Amino acid sequence: MTDAFTRSGASPPETKTGTPASTAEDSSAKKRIVEPTYEGDFVLDERLPLECGRALVCPTLHYAVYGRLNAARDNAVLVCHALSGSALVGSWWPEVFAPGAVLSLEHDFVICINLLGSCYGSTGPSSVNPETGEPYGPDFPLVSIRDNVRAQARLLDSLGVRRLRLVLGGSIGAMQALEWTIQFPQRVERALVVGVTPLSAMGLALNHLQRQAIQHDPEWNGGRYLPQKPPRRGLALARQIAMISYKSAPLFEERFGRNPNRNGEDPWAANGLDGGLTGGRFDVAGYLDHQGQRFIDRFDANSYLAILRTMDTWDPLRGYASPEEAFAGIRARLIFIGISTDWLFPAAEVRRFAETIRAAGAHAEYREMVSAHGHDAFLAEQAELVRLLH
Amino acid sequence: MTDAFTRSGASPPETKTGTPASTAEDSSAKKRIVEPTYEGDFVLDERLPLECGRALVCPTLHYAVYGRLNAARDNAVLVCHALSGSALVGSWWPEVFAPGAVLSLEHDFVICINLLGSCYGSTGPSSVNPETGEPYGPDFPLVSIRDNVRAQARLLDSLGVRRLRLVLGGSIGAMQALEWTIQFPQRVERALVVGVTPLSAMGLALNHLQRQAIQHDPEWNGGRYLPQKPPRRGLALARQIAMISYKSAPLFEERFGRNPNRNGEDPWAANGLDGGLTGGRFDVAGYLDHQGQRFIDRFDANSYLAILRTMDTWDPLRGYASPEEAFAGIRARLIFIGISTDWLFPAAEVRRFAETIRAAGAHAEYREMVSAHGHDAFLAEQAELVRLLH
Repeated sequence: MTDAFTRSGASPPETKTGTPASTAEDSSAKKRIVEPTYEGDFVLDERLPLECGRALVCPTLHYAVYGRLNAARDNAVLVCHALSGSALVGSWWPEVFAPGAVLSLEHDFVICINLLGSCYGSTGPSSVNPETGEPYGPDFPLVSIRDNVRAQARLLDSLGVRRLRLVLGGSIGAMQALEWTIQFPQRVERALVVGVTPLSAMGLALNHLQRQAIQHDPEWNGGRYLPQKPPRRGLALARQIAMISYKSAPLFEERFGRNPNRNGEDPWAANGLDGGLTGGRFDVAGYLDHQGQRFIDRFDANSYLAILRTMDTWDPLRGYASPEEAFAGIRARLIFIGISTDWLFPAAEVRRFAETIRAAGAHAEYREMVSAHGHDAFLAEQAELVRLLH
Repeated sequence: MTDAFTRSGASPPETKTGTPASTAEDSSAKKRIVEPTYEGDFVLDERLPLECGRALVCPTLHYAVYGRLNAARDNAVLVCHALSGSALVGSWWPEVFAPGAVLSLEHDFVICINLLGSCYGSTGPSSVNPETGEPYGPDFPLVSIRDNVRAQARLLDSLGVRRLRLVLGGSIGAMQALEWTIQFPQRVERALVVGVTPLSAMGLALNHLQRQAIQHDPEWNGGRYLPQKPPRRGLALARQIAMISYKSAPLFEERFGRNPNRNGEDPWAANGLDGGLTGGRFDVAGYLDHQGQRFIDRFDANSYLAILRTMDTWDPLRGYASPEEAFAGIRARLIFIGISTDWLFPAAEVRRFAETIRAAGAHAEYREMVSAHGHDAFLAEQAELVRLLH
C-alpha cells in the first residue's frame, strides 16, 4: 500500500518542480532496477467467481517473472505487491534481489502478479466489462484477497508452478501471502508476512477518510469520470492521508520538524494562500503536497477505491468457525515481521496475530524490524529487512 | 480542539438518526451543565495589532464568567478553550466545577473567552470588517496565540482582574495558558497545561490534511461561501480527520473493532454505496460520518481554517533567542499533563517540553494522565483529570 515506486526507484529520475521535499526516498530512488525475464498477461479462460457473489468474466492478470523455473520446478517464489505497487517487483523491491539477499536471479523463479482492481495491467475498474462492453467504472465488484489468491493460483498452474518455495509480501502483499498458506496449504513451503494484521478499527478509519477524499471530489462523478478528467485533488488528498499512516511521527519530526516549506514560503505571513486563511506552508505540508502530486500521475482513483475495499474486507477468519479451523491446516513455515514504528499495523498487533496463528497449530515465527520509517520501512529500508531475514 | 460539546454535554440531547455510533461520549452527554453568572461581549476600543503585521479593528471578545470576583480580587481563574470550544466552559468542562474538583463556583471567579477567529461570538471570519463593511471571509488575518492572549488581558483589565490565581486549558487552550505565563509573568500564579507542545511535524501534517479537505470542497469557493451554502462535506471530512488524531487506536478497537456499521450495512456486499466500489460501511466509518455530520451543524469552515492557523503557528520560542530567554521569566507554577495514549501530542513530548521549560529556570512539574481516550481524554475523562490534580 505504500508508494513502492517513489520509495525504491521504479520511477524515472524526476525533474522536481514547485516545492518537493527532497527526502531519503528521493535519494534512494537512484537505486538499480532489476529487469524481469518476462512481463505479460494471463487471461483466465472462464469466469472467476468472487466471494461477494459476483464474478469477473475472463479477467486478465498482468504479471512479471524473474529468473527461470528449474527442471525440478522447486525454485518458484511468489512476491505479492502492496496497494499501489505493480508486478515489477524488481523495480520496487530491488534490494531483495541483491547478491546474498532474499531472492536470487540465478537460483529462483520469481513471480509477481498485479492485483485485480489495480491500474497496472490486471483487470480493474477501467477495464472493459465483457458483459456490457463498457468499462466497469464504479460497478467493479469487490474482489477479495482470497479471490486474488485463487486467480493467482490459476496463473501459477499455467506456468507449471505447483509449489512455491516462498511466498512473501508486505502490507496487502502480506495479506495475500498469508492467505496463500491458508487456501493452498500443499503449495507453499514458507511465507514471509511483513507488517500486517487484518485492518484494525483505526486502519479502517484511515481508509474511510481516503475514500471520502476521492468521492468528495466533484470530478469523481460517482466513479464515472473521464480518463482525461480524473478526480486529481481527491486522489492526491487520499494519498496524503495514507502517507501519514505509512510514515512515523519521529521520522516526520526529524525530516521536517516545524520548518517552513523549503521553497521559502512563510507560515507566519499575514496573507498566505487562499487569501490569508492558510498562509504559507510548513515543510511537511510541502512534502505531502508533493507526494500527492506524484501519485495522481501514476494511479487511478477507482482502482484506489477498489483496492481499499480489498484491503478493508480481508479477514482470514471469515467463513471459519475458529482460528483453529482457519489456521491449523497451514503447512508452510511462517515468518511474521512487525515494524517497530508502524502505526497502521503496530508491531505488537503483528506479534499477537502471529501468536494466534501459532496457537492454532501452525508454525509461525515473529521477528521485529527496528526502523524509524513506520509501515513504509519494508520498502524504505530494504537492506534492513534483508538483514533481519539472515 | 476536541469536540467539547459532544464530549461533555453542552449540546441538547440529540435525536440520533441514520447511523450514529452510540459511544461513551454520547452517554456522557447526559451530564449536568454549569450555567454562567454572565455571558457577554467585550469590544476593544482600539485596533488590536497582530503579530503578523495586520490588525483587527475594535474586535469583539465573547466571554462567560462563573462565580464572582471577591473583594481582594485574588480569586480569578482563566479557562482557555480548545479548537471548537466556546466561552461556555461550564457546558464543556462541567466536572472541573464539581464539588471538591478544580474550580469552585463559590470561591472562584472563572472567566472563559472565545478565541478570535472562532464562530462562537468573538470576531472571526464571518464578522464584518469595519474597514470594508464586508465579512472578513478568507481575508481574516492570522491571529496568533499571543494576539489572543494580549486581547484577553485587555478584557481582564476591564473586569478589574489584574492577577489570575490559575490559568488552564487543554490542547490550544493549553497553548494560551502557557503563553499567558510568558507574556504576563506578573499576572499568573499557577498554570495547568494539558496535552500540548508546539505542534509536531505530524500535527502540522494532520492540520494540512484537514485544511485541504475544506478547501477542496467546491462550496468553499475560496472562502467566499454563502452562510446558507457552506462547504459541509469538506468540513465534515476535516472533522473526521481530526477525530482520528483525538482518539486512540486501542479505543477505536475496543469500541468498533471490525464490526459492520450498526445500522446493518454489509461491508462485504457485492454492490455497496456508490455503485459497488465502496460497499457497506464498517462501524468505525459510521461513527466518523456521524461525528462529521454533528460538527457541520455547529461550526464554521472559515473559523476552522483560521484556528488551525492559530494552532499551527504557535511557537513560544518564536522571537526569543533561546528557551532561557523565553521561559526564564515565567513566575507561575506550571503543571504539565501528558495523556498516555495521546497521539497528537504524545505524553513523552509533553514531558520533554516541561523539562525544557524547567531547565530554562521556570517551575514546571509533569504529571501523566493514564487514559485510553487519546488526546480527547481531557474532555472525555474529566473525572480522571480532576483526580490527577489532587
